[in-house]
Amino acid sequence: MIIVRRCQVPYNSTMRILLTNDDGIFAPGLLAMYKVLAEDAKVDVVAPQAVHSGGSHSITIRHPLLWQRASVNDVFSGAGVEGTPADCVKLALNVLLDEKPDLVVSGINAGLNTGINVIYSGTVAAAIEAAMMGLPAVAVSLQFSQDMDFDYAARIAKPIIRQLVPHGLGPGQVCNINIPEMRPDWPRGVCVAPQSTRQIVDAFERRTDPNGREYYWLSGDYTNLDDDVDTDRLTLREGYICVTPLQFNMTDNALLEDMRHWSWPDVT
Amino acid sequence: MIIVRRCQVPYNSTMRILLTNDDGIFAPGLLAMYKVLAEDAKVDVVAPQAVHSGGSHSITIRHPLLWQRASVNDVFSGAGVEGTPADCVKLALNVLLDEKPDLVVSGINAGLNTGINVIYSGTVAAAIEAAMMGLPAVAVSLQFSQDMDFDYAARIAKPIIRQLVPHGLGPGQVCNINIPEMRPDWPRGVCVAPQSTRQIVDAFERRTDPNGREYYWLSGDYTNLDDDVDTDRLTLREGYICVTPLQFNMTDNALLEDMRHWSWPDVT
Repeated sequence: MIIVRRCQVPYNSTMRILLTNDDGIFAPGLLAMYKVLAEDAKVDVVAPQAVHSGGSHSITIRHPLLWQRASVNDVFSGAGVEGTPADCVKLALNVLLDEKPDLVVSGINAGLNTGINVIYSGTVAAAIEAAMMGLPAVAVSLQFSQDMDFDYAARIAKPIIRQLVPHGLGPGQVCNINIPEMRPDWPRGVCVAPQSTRQIVDAFERRTDPNGREYYWLSGDYTNLDDDVDTDRLTLREGYICVTPLQFNMTDNALLEDMRHWSWPDVT
Repeated sequence: MIIVRRCQVPYNSTMRILLTNDDGIFAPGLLAMYKVLAEDAKVDVVAPQAVHSGGSHSITIRHPLLWQRASVNDVFSGAGVEGTPADCVKLALNVLLDEKPDLVVSGINAGLNTGINVIYSGTVAAAIEAAMMGLPAVAVSLQFSQDMDFDYAARIAKPIIRQLVPHGLGPGQVCNINIPEMRPDWPRGVCVAPQSTRQIVDAFERRTDPNGREYYWLSGDYTNLDDDVDTDRLTLREGYICVTPLQFNMTDNALLEDMRHWSWPDVT
């Protein structure tokens, strides 16, 4: 884990930002993020109408996409899409927006997106979709607690987000920001760390429905936290905000080199 | 692009294989795969009841999972899950199977899963889920055409799959196999190549529903194919079967090292 140097960098540029999420257009995390970003940027909101937690990078190809204008708390008016977070980014950039944004922000998600939950996350998927379309993108998530303060998290996230582009977050690059819950002396700073790949131990609770059919409900969490070093998860657990750059090439390069020396059957 | 040495390696071990897919338990690609794998392995089928193309790595956390026994063409009896491909792997390994499989196979998918379509693919996601749970896993896809011959593809895929574990495909490792359409002299052999990260150019067709509401339908494809070198996509286009090892750490390591030298705001 590297604890980066802290310094206050001013921002003064006006950006166009596309804001989306996976908790839906009426989620408090999105509203909080909108309020602080809109102070000095042009923010367009295109977000799912429904909650898509755990929806990963799913896209709608076998059904049509519909959308409706939604006015949220008299603060903003955005496009509510009957689709997934990745759908929202695709529809926004191809159809709904007049001008290409400078940055895509996804969140604030209610709950961390660290470790292999990055793979399941619709919040992260929206940011990766934007990167796949050639834009810089940021996902923001806040550790789940009973009294999540999204306004606080947005206020903390904003200066980090606004520094990313001047610092060099470029087209096709993604930054995954996770913010720890509020505790005394937290956050202790900003850390840069890689995604943990530790396994989640799933649990399925078996129940019976009113008609006698069995069903299962998924839960599950990490175990053996202590031996997970120098990762997003450790960083958060120690009270730091974690910044993890992500990419979308899934190739296992080490195994690729190895496989080039394997023998293969004759398929001709 | 590396064209690997071809040689016939015999296989004679009896394995336990979990077979799943994203086209659903009644899909012809799954049936074809089952038939050849079951010739000399114990194959359990746990697959979605419905089609989940484009469903990526979504998991069901906000609803219960139900499943039913499904008998398919008097060839096999499997578990049809009202959930996603990743759900199927989780439910199979945690609840439905008595014994841990030696290998998880996902497919055969109707259509290639190459390039950034790897990210959208439920077929690949099921294999990655298995790897995240500590198993070796293989995804198999056949290029889409009007007369896809899944029996042919399964016959070709089987010796490749059966060699992977003896060769060293280990716990947590994923192999993505794509098979080109049938043409004279194709397939020309087996190639090992990385995932292409070229952008897909999306297209949304705007239509109006019977009640006057506008809706959009997503299509889209790659452009500028020629300058995509040494990747899964080029390999397939030239008539080779492509084998790409995948992993699930999304960290952009180069950018990570760079970011450690960036300055960050004071958040304390």
